[in-house]
Amino acid sequence: MNYKLTIAYDGTRYRGWQRLGDSGQTIQGKIEAVLSRMEGRTVEISGSGRTDAGAHAMGQVATVQLSGDRGPKEIKDYVNFYLPEDIGILSVEEAPPRFHARLSSSWKTYRYRIWMSSQPCIFERKYCYCPERIPDAEIMREAAQQFLGTHDFRAFHTGKTKKSTVRTIYSIELLQVGPELQIFFTGDGFLYNMVRIMVGTLLEIGWGDRPAKDIARLLTQQERAQAGFTAPPQGLCLMEVVYL
Amino acid sequence: MNYKLTIAYDGTRYRGWQRLGDSGQTIQGKIEAVLSRMEGRTVEISGSGRTDAGAHAMGQVATVQLSGDRGPKEIKDYVNFYLPEDIGILSVEEAPPRFHARLSSSWKTYRYRIWMSSQPCIFERKYCYCPERIPDAEIMREAAQQFLGTHDFRAFHTGKTKKSTVRTIYSIELLQVGPELQIFFTGDGFLYNMVRIMVGTLLEIGWGDRPAKDIARLLTQQERAQAGFTAPPQGLCLMEVVYL
Repeated sequence: MNYKLTIAYDGTRYRGWQRLGDSGQTIQGKIEAVLSRMEGRTVEISGSGRTDAGAHAMGQVATVQLSGDRGPKEIKDYVNFYLPEDIGILSVEEAPPRFHARLSSSWKTYRYRIWMSSQPCIFERKYCYCPERIPDAEIMREAAQQFLGTHDFRAFHTGKTKKSTVRTIYSIELLQVGPELQIFFTGDGFLYNMVRIMVGTLLEIGWGDRPAKDIARLLTQQERAQAGFTAPPQGLCLMEVVYL
Repeated sequence: MNYKLTIAYDGTRYRGWQRLGDSGQTIQGKIEAVLSRMEGRTVEISGSGRTDAGAHAMGQVATVQLSGDRGPKEIKDYVNFYLPEDIGILSVEEAPPRFHARLSSSWKTYRYRIWMSSQPCIFERKYCYCPERIPDAEIMREAAQQFLGTHDFRAFHTGKTKKSTVRTIYSIELLQVGPELQIFFTGDGFLYNMVRIMVGTLLEIGWGDRPAKDIARLLTQQERAQAGFTAPPQGLCLMEVVYL
């Protein structure tokens, strides 16, 4: 039986989503360990994509093949009982045999939280980036429009890949929520570190360190070294993966 | 010069507000250490009251005598620079010579957060109590009215005291905020563990384990052993101390 798992986690203590050899300190590794215990054999899960060390999720999705001896609610309760308290399964659903968390996804939404107050950020410090200087949100909002649509995001990407670096961004929304700026990115897929480099570039624009029109140039020029810094992981959260 | 400090902290890592001998792992101890470094002498601060190990504050108030060599903004920036990231000074204000954080206070508001969903509580787990069973909030709201007014709260108090255990509760508000129940208690003062025992008693009523009218009996009977359990500290936060 094929199952769709929807998963939330506080990534603070973890080395990211993806299982790394024998190191248990990954989200995937923790969930697989519990499912393997339940099934009495080695179980592997496929996530919709990796999330970075220290980044969070409120709606990560993974697929897994299980024996079908237990119903979805029983699976959910079993796994949540054994998972550490910073990882939780929000839902377990039976899925069609060909459904795959990564290959079947239509779009994803990430949120990046920036603390915009000079007051100390006490309770949100593990879930927000708290820069020393407060950026201009209006300038960032306007500049962000340059990312919309289909582009080669090679400049907004860490590492090398032979695969296509073309992605489509459907929307970018900047919301002021109390003392925070929350930026929501929705697109058909995101390259490694792509959201964090887009945020770093927007911040440099918001601080006045880079011209607002620079993004169009970076999208054309396609050089990573020309783009902004990689904003820290704790502000990042995978909110939703949508399947049509 | 006498100063009023307004302080926020995430109490997760600490043994509570009050300095304990040489143990640095208290909020008061951490702040005094930084102020002592700044002044070049041993500085002591007076809080509006103690908070328990693991409990939080968004508006604790303390008074302190300082040389006056630095202005309020300079003091705030200095202390925040050296404090750990889970303690922060929200404001520093010059205060009249007789102003005292505890003795001058008119009332205080505490908040207690209860996670009311069967979904795992991932991001709020250090700031909410997540009981196994979900209580009935309407029954709790009605029962809570019995606490209002001036009573001897001896039954809602841990330890022995020769001092008066009479306190006045001005208001108790229960708010449903997303998947949480937040209970706000405002009163002229609170005994050791008083809010947590009031919450534990309300929870037992909300679970149907205790009759709703029981609180009036406990306030008259004044026996700690008859009242409810002490709800865990992580749900508790000192929100505000008001001075008229």
